[in-house]
Amino acid sequence: MSAQDSQESKAKVGVLGASGYTGAELLRLLIGHPRVEIALLTAERRAGKAMADVFPQFAPYKLPMLTTIEGADWQNPALDVALCALPHGTTQKVIAALLARAPRTKVIDLSADFRLADPAAYARWYGHEHAAPELQKEAVYGLTEVHRPRIKAARLVANPGCYTTCAELALIPLLQAKAIDPDEIVIDAKSGMTGAGRAVREDMLFAEVSEGIHAYGVGHHRHMAELDQEFALAAGRAVIVTFTPHLVPMNRGILSTIYVRGAKAAPDDLHALLAKAYANEPFVHVLAYRTLPQTRHVRGSNMTFIGVAADRIAGRAIIVAALDNLAKGASGQAVQNMNVMLGFAETMGLEQVALFP
Amino acid sequence: MSAQDSQESKAKVGVLGASGYTGAELLRLLIGHPRVEIALLTAERRAGKAMADVFPQFAPYKLPMLTTIEGADWQNPALDVALCALPHGTTQKVIAALLARAPRTKVIDLSADFRLADPAAYARWYGHEHAAPELQKEAVYGLTEVHRPRIKAARLVANPGCYTTCAELALIPLLQAKAIDPDEIVIDAKSGMTGAGRAVREDMLFAEVSEGIHAYGVGHHRHMAELDQEFALAAGRAVIVTFTPHLVPMNRGILSTIYVRGAKAAPDDLHALLAKAYANEPFVHVLAYRTLPQTRHVRGSNMTFIGVAADRIAGRAIIVAALDNLAKGASGQAVQNMNVMLGFAETMGLEQVALFP
Amino acid sequence: MSAQDSQESKAKVGVLGASGYTGAELLRLLIGHPRVEIALLTAERRAGKAMADVFPQFAPYKLPMLTTIEGADWQNPALDVALCALPHGTTQKVIAALLARAPRTKVIDLSADFRLADPAAYARWYGHEHAAPELQKEAVYGLTEVHRPRIKAARLVANPGCYTTCAELALIPLLQAKAIDPDEIVIDAKSGMTGAGRAVREDMLFAEVSEGIHAYGVGHHRHMAELDQEFALAAGRAVIVTFTPHLVPMNRGILSTIYVRGAKAAPDDLHALLAKAYANEPFVHVLAYRTLPQTRHVRGSNMTFIGVAADRIAGRAIIVAALDNLAKGASGQAVQNMNVMLGFAETMGLEQVALFP
Amino acid sequence: MSAQDSQESKAKVGVLGASGYTGAELLRLLIGHPRVEIALLTAERRAGKAMADVFPQFAPYKLPMLTTIEGADWQNPALDVALCALPHGTTQKVIAALLARAPRTKVIDLSADFRLADPAAYARWYGHEHAAPELQKEAVYGLTEVHRPRIKAARLVANPGCYTTCAELALIPLLQAKAIDPDEIVIDAKSGMTGAGRAVREDMLFAEVSEGIHAYGVGHHRHMAELDQEFALAAGRAVIVTFTPHLVPMNRGILSTIYVRGAKAAPDDLHALLAKAYANEPFVHVLAYRTLPQTRHVRGSNMTFIGVAADRIAGRAIIVAALDNLAKGASGQAVQNMNVMLGFAETMGLEQVALFP
Repeated sequence: MSAQDSQESKAKVGVLGASGYTGAELLRLLIGHPRVEIALLTAERRAGKAMADVFPQFAPYKLPMLTTIEGADWQNPALDVALCALPHGTTQKVIAALLARAPRTKVIDLSADFRLADPAAYARWYGHEHAAPELQKEAVYGLTEVHRPRIKAARLVANPGCYTTCAELALIPLLQAKAIDPDEIVIDAKSGMTGAGRAVREDMLFAEVSEGIHAYGVGHHRHMAELDQEFALAAGRAVIVTFTPHLVPMNRGILSTIYVRGAKAAPDDLHALLAKAYANEPFVHVLAYRTLPQTRHVRGSNMTFIGVAADRIAGRAIIVAALDNLAKGASGQAVQNMNVMLGFAETMGLEQVALFP
Repeated sequence: MSAQDSQESKAKVGVLGASGYTGAELLRLLIGHPRVEIALLTAERRAGKAMADVFPQFAPYKLPMLTTIEGADWQNPALDVALCALPHGTTQKVIAALLARAPRTKVIDLSADFRLADPAAYARWYGHEHAAPELQKEAVYGLTEVHRPRIKAARLVANPGCYTTCAELALIPLLQAKAIDPDEIVIDAKSGMTGAGRAVREDMLFAEVSEGIHAYGVGHHRHMAELDQEFALAAGRAVIVTFTPHLVPMNRGILSTIYVRGAKAAPDDLHALLAKAYANEPFVHVLAYRTLPQTRHVRGSNMTFIGVAADRIAGRAIIVAALDNLAKGASGQAVQNMNVMLGFAETMGLEQVALFP
Repeated sequence: MSAQDSQESKAKVGVLGASGYTGAELLRLLIGHPRVEIALLTAERRAGKAMADVFPQFAPYKLPMLTTIEGADWQNPALDVALCALPHGTTQKVIAALLARAPRTKVIDLSADFRLADPAAYARWYGHEHAAPELQKEAVYGLTEVHRPRIKAARLVANPGCYTTCAELALIPLLQAKAIDPDEIVIDAKSGMTGAGRAVREDMLFAEVSEGIHAYGVGHHRHMAELDQEFALAAGRAVIVTFTPHLVPMNRGILSTIYVRGAKAAPDDLHALLAKAYANEPFVHVLAYRTLPQTRHVRGSNMTFIGVAADRIAGRAIIVAALDNLAKGASGQAVQNMNVMLGFAETMGLEQVALFP
Repeated sequence: MSAQDSQESKAKVGVLGASGYTGAELLRLLIGHPRVEIALLTAERRAGKAMADVFPQFAPYKLPMLTTIEGADWQNPALDVALCALPHGTTQKVIAALLARAPRTKVIDLSADFRLADPAAYARWYGHEHAAPELQKEAVYGLTEVHRPRIKAARLVANPGCYTTCAELALIPLLQAKAIDPDEIVIDAKSGMTGAGRAVREDMLFAEVSEGIHAYGVGHHRHMAELDQEFALAAGRAVIVTFTPHLVPMNRGILSTIYVRGAKAAPDDLHALLAKAYANEPFVHVLAYRTLPQTRHVRGSNMTFIGVAADRIAGRAIIVAALDNLAKGASGQAVQNMNVMLGFAETMGLEQVALFP
């Protein structure tokens, strides 16, 4: 840390749910962040242990011991930011309680709990009423490139899902420009295994998922609710897309192969629209026309790469977007949002070049 | 080998191009085939070596030494069957010469050279005239389940490609029944690395392709020519599909995720049609409605698994098909065709259960 | 199945614990075995389901439904052979009960429960008395190549472990010949992930074990007890080896790199000794001197490949042995033992060539 | 970049051989290094292209175009540091020419060309005389933790190999302390695939090396020459170790499992010696006694993790060391050496936490 940095104040940051993959990824990024002090780490089942006991890569670093959420002192001193990497469903109660005790703490929630602004949509997709409807109203959807001004002013940001970030970055500028037909979008998405989190499930064992590929959740996947919301916002009308997720034997990465039809726009027009939309964005890079991205080239970085090619059927285009599901698809975007909320340079702590090979 | 087997005559079989992956896969299957004698193995650059030098798994087996095609004795005795696993482009000349010297030998060609029946289509897709147009006319497209009677009578069978076998088995019965809209088919295909063969290319190095996924050949891939031909035959009209291949970090397997619209048929009708079409086929298994296949569950077997699910958009369905690109997608189907051509039981030598995990 | 086969009687075989990896591997081999009828499949937690529900690769095959051990009818008709693929520890009680009810059933146990002949050794390594000491006395250690005559006569065979089979096949002939120093053996073993079974554990998740390698159980691993027993038997004196297991991100395979010192024998003498010992063995193949095996070249086959090279330090040699932990290291050897016990050809059902690539 | 950084002068750095894996890894680290300006990138066969054409992950960064070594302007301005990531053998001539033209440029060579101080040893291991014997004399072996003072003063640093860095860091403190028997060291090393570089070879294709493990170079591997040199220096006498490298299906990582005998020291004494030796080193972390490292927990970081456990044979210990072969095993250590040579903080640009999962 340089002399200058140490003179600047540091934000006190807590990670709730530090023993999962998005928690570990948050720590990886925060340890190198010059304006952050890691003040609190929680992990219910591992409370009392060191981070190195649950993720040995942290052995060389000095970090707070893991504690329970109940066991944490929330006011003395209050956190500037709480990053919540807790399971879907339980998060809404935890955050409601947290904000009741520490109302000035800013919260970035990596779960799905606050992503749907419409209480009815939430109830329909999740099968129960939201436990913190006031906060649901307050929460801002954290797709940084799209909602930056509102994120800047927010107290509670709902960090988007990994599949949705990937598809939304590729499609929102095109829907906003009315350049594609909203009724003719097919998203064939492929994800690495960390997208499923660290849950101990038979179908996530190495021997079950290596050396093969498969689709899952066909026809119904909760990420669709997010897509519906954001695409409708962009298009100014309801948009229902076809979306099929697949699991690929790799740790990190999402590749979305998206089939679209240009309403009035040719494939190269779509490319030009995307290139223009992201010309000044540090974390979205549109490749040369006809060049398509690979997930490995964004691994470990906060980048999204987008490519566009023409289909052989006239009027149809294929858009491929790639990101790291733990970085831009989760923890990286959370840190990006934190930077926006705290007035830091948006790229701070996120400058790592992708790790390839 | 049982006493009974040894009393039956064995077919003399040669493998041309035994040092590639489809060549090795042919040998794997032929070694266990009770009615075959492996009489000839060629490999131009490895001539003079033993198979165990190019594929150590064959060390325990007694096999002919590798020879060049020129160096082989083609008439004394003549081969009953030649299985050609040579590169695209050179094969047509080799087979023309072979059949000139040994006109009674049956030939199964695993290259793309004889798959297109129309000389004009061949010239358009490959950029040059076919070198053996008479044989091109004679050749029968070897999708066993579809063209079995013609294969039975053929001297020259053009074994289908791996991507195409997978997509064609899933779609031909539906096109024949006019159950889906032929203008609205999107095939998103994912292949293991052996689909690229054993060519020594930088982009096939382990470190280049592990831990990632990418699309390639978007908008233009020679497999499309085969699809066009067979789908038109099935539909009775021109069919141009959208087709995007991807590479997955696994050795074997193709998964085709196919987006279709039922012209008049609901998704469960599509499932019923496929289930009926393949009810008596030993190597195509239609899973229960809404159950989708994984490539790993057909690895090393000659099976194709097909599943059907409804999309959330009414009238649209998602069909997923999985096969092993080296087995049913290449060498397994070649042995299946050989069995048909020689009057053997169609499953002979192909009974292996998939190797999972 | 040929006409001849159907005239021969088939052995009624049951697989206890069919929902684990060694259970599935037994089924893979037994389905293709011409003299076997699969009469019973048990799986406690999955009872009432079909095999295809727990291993989809079996969907095309007609198999008995999964049942509990308690729910099975053991006498009507009695099994000829029970193959036990149950967890260590519980197996001894199950087999004792089974043999009480069906005393003429032959049992091959894939667990560790009956591998140690010495009750004191068992108690020392496992921390409790054996629950079936009479059967422990009766059981024959099932390393086929070494104990074939006793296996032929046995009612209860204790199938060896995967690590131990690999190391024992490489070393027993050398210890028997007193060609190496028994006090100077270092075994550095590397295993694929299926060696850990299908137990649902965090440290077996794909994301935990892909893209890395690590040692475990250093200095103390229960496989050592088996090694001690068999090496002492071969050497005629106590032999305590250094043994370190590692986990490699692959599904199948064990590679044992073994450092030895020739007491009086040079490395090429050691090679000659091994080549001679296994000259007539169908499932152990000694490669040319200085050629070393790779696990991928025995994948899915019942083969063990062994290579020998000289170290640069005079008098020391490096022996490398490779096998498939689920095949020769477990279920393949179990079927091999079954063939010996039933008087079938020893290779029956085990002729599959390795699946590479 | 902060205001302060921009006021400090930056070192002009060139990477020779930027199109290989160690070249790309150098760039990954240098892009984030606050005191470096990337002034030159060479790649003979790719000259005229952009880095993004050979490694797409660099697409978002502004970098010099690739040039040939001949085509580069070496004096205007002179480089402060040249990092050579060229093939073994050709490097010695390139560096001799470079230093003739730009004698004040500091050179860090990642090839093996200058690692052996003894011309006779070089000639013996490489089969020809060294082409730049004066420079060979001048070169300092760049194992930072061991030779830091000499590296600080050096003009030419020979960056160590990946296998050797791993084994030397684990053993040198023990040899210096005469705590282990130098004649009884066995190093069983396992490497990821990038250790072989980006050379286009059949045996490095994905399908050849995935799903398996094998040993290679048994009994003779050029890394041994480096080990001999550094171990002799540490022990004050000749030390010849047994060393067997293996290839593991993962991109990055070396795990060295080392079998030693404490001359007078018990295993926990060895642990204490190592812990003390590295107590203040930022890039060597000794784990708690009996805790062993995994390569995945150092991936992408410059860390070496070392663990020690007792063997079950009294007086013997097992030491396991893990590093990332492209980072601490090559490019990371090169940047570390550059920092030492230029008087920068040694950890500058190397603070990345390991990427796991």
